[in-house]
Amino acid sequence: MGTLHAFAAPDGTRADVVSDAEIQFKHARSLAAKQRGDTRSAIIWCGTELLTERGFQITGIDEILSIVGVPKGSFYYYFKSKREFGVAVVDNYVQFYAQKMALLFDNPQRTPLQRLQDFVDDGKLGMAKYDFKRGCLIGNMGQELAALNNEFRERLEQVMLTWEARVTALFQLALERGEIAPTHDPKSLSQFFWIGWEGAILRSKLTRSVAPLDHFAQIFFSKVLAR
Amino acid sequence: MGTLHAFAAPDGTRADVVSDAEIQFKHARSLAAKQRGDTRSAIIWCGTELLTERGFQITGIDEILSIVGVPKGSFYYYFKSKREFGVAVVDNYVQFYAQKMALLFDNPQRTPLQRLQDFVDDGKLGMAKYDFKRGCLIGNMGQELAALNNEFRERLEQVMLTWEARVTALFQLALERGEIAPTHDPKSLSQFFWIGWEGAILRSKLTRSVAPLDHFAQIFFSKVLAR
Repeated sequence: MGTLHAFAAPDGTRADVVSDAEIQFKHARSLAAKQRGDTRSAIIWCGTELLTERGFQITGIDEILSIVGVPKGSFYYYFKSKREFGVAVVDNYVQFYAQKMALLFDNPQRTPLQRLQDFVDDGKLGMAKYDFKRGCLIGNMGQELAALNNEFRERLEQVMLTWEARVTALFQLALERGEIAPTHDPKSLSQFFWIGWEGAILRSKLTRSVAPLDHFAQIFFSKVLAR
Repeated sequence: MGTLHAFAAPDGTRADVVSDAEIQFKHARSLAAKQRGDTRSAIIWCGTELLTERGFQITGIDEILSIVGVPKGSFYYYFKSKREFGVAVVDNYVQFYAQKMALLFDNPQRTPLQRLQDFVDDGKLGMAKYDFKRGCLIGNMGQELAALNNEFRERLEQVMLTWEARVTALFQLALERGEIAPTHDPKSLSQFFWIGWEGAILRSKLTRSVAPLDHFAQIFFSKVLAR
């Protein structure tokens, strides 16, 4: 029920018609920020959601402001430029994932490798929740912008290195506890994990299924981590 | 010296200035097609080059026509729509890679695993040649369009399955010749290879180095393919 919102489709040939209920589902974090009066955060969350699904260059500021329900002019009150907005969206995503990783990777109830499996399972749920249309903002923006904008490329690579360090520490712990053989190099394993994981997220978008995530994890755990 | 061509940059804030020499390097295949009088192919090759580097949605038809040196109006003589043009670009890329894979994967001078290593080395050369700005058109378009356009998503996934089948056959041959253990499942290995390889290409764009390609291949050969 409720209002229907029409947005231009990426190929310019048709308009997406989106219901209020769909906006509430797709932009839940943005709406929550708006409700607590944090308009800047509402714009950033809506941007995080739209940029992850559609990309940075093609997503219009006007569309984001329309969903958030703030006047067009107010964007430049919060951000100097679309570039600065893009950086804020990346930072927001990084902060969100830092909290998620802290919950999953520091969980004392689980062994280090179980924690990594929990991360894989969380990723599968996340992909399915948004109908395999979002994936990883960092991977998406990296694919889109690495060749076009050196500032974004360096920032995104820096995020990947932070995530790598997180999983390196997890493998280090697994090694110390004897969960993987001492011949393994935790950093090398983590680099391989992230290369493959981002590839699996990409493929999951193409297949619209969790099968690539499962397949990557299954072989990673059974063969790459094998003694 | 020659002419300088100005193009709008993706963020709309500045113009890229490109020399004739750079165009000749970056659009060599397009220029070759133009010189032999095949304008349609020249437009498709230029599109292949630009779309791989920048993406489908943001690349303007006018810019492609300007590089190829044909009047604006002539685009619709060759293509019904930008969508049809995008499909032609994908088909062109697929055909190009089919020839490349035939050369590398059917090379009787090399063992099956050596042929896969040759493919990895060829990919490294290709990434470095274009300063880590291109990568794989199928991966790039998949990342960009999977969520936005079901027709492209299905076509791109079909390409991935064709490439998977190619490498499955290679592992099957490796297995028959005793180069990998008979306990391996060639199809499962190939699926894993392509998930990770596309991830490595993406990461190579972020790091602007071949290190992720080397790292993925090294662990794939030494651990995943281990007996």
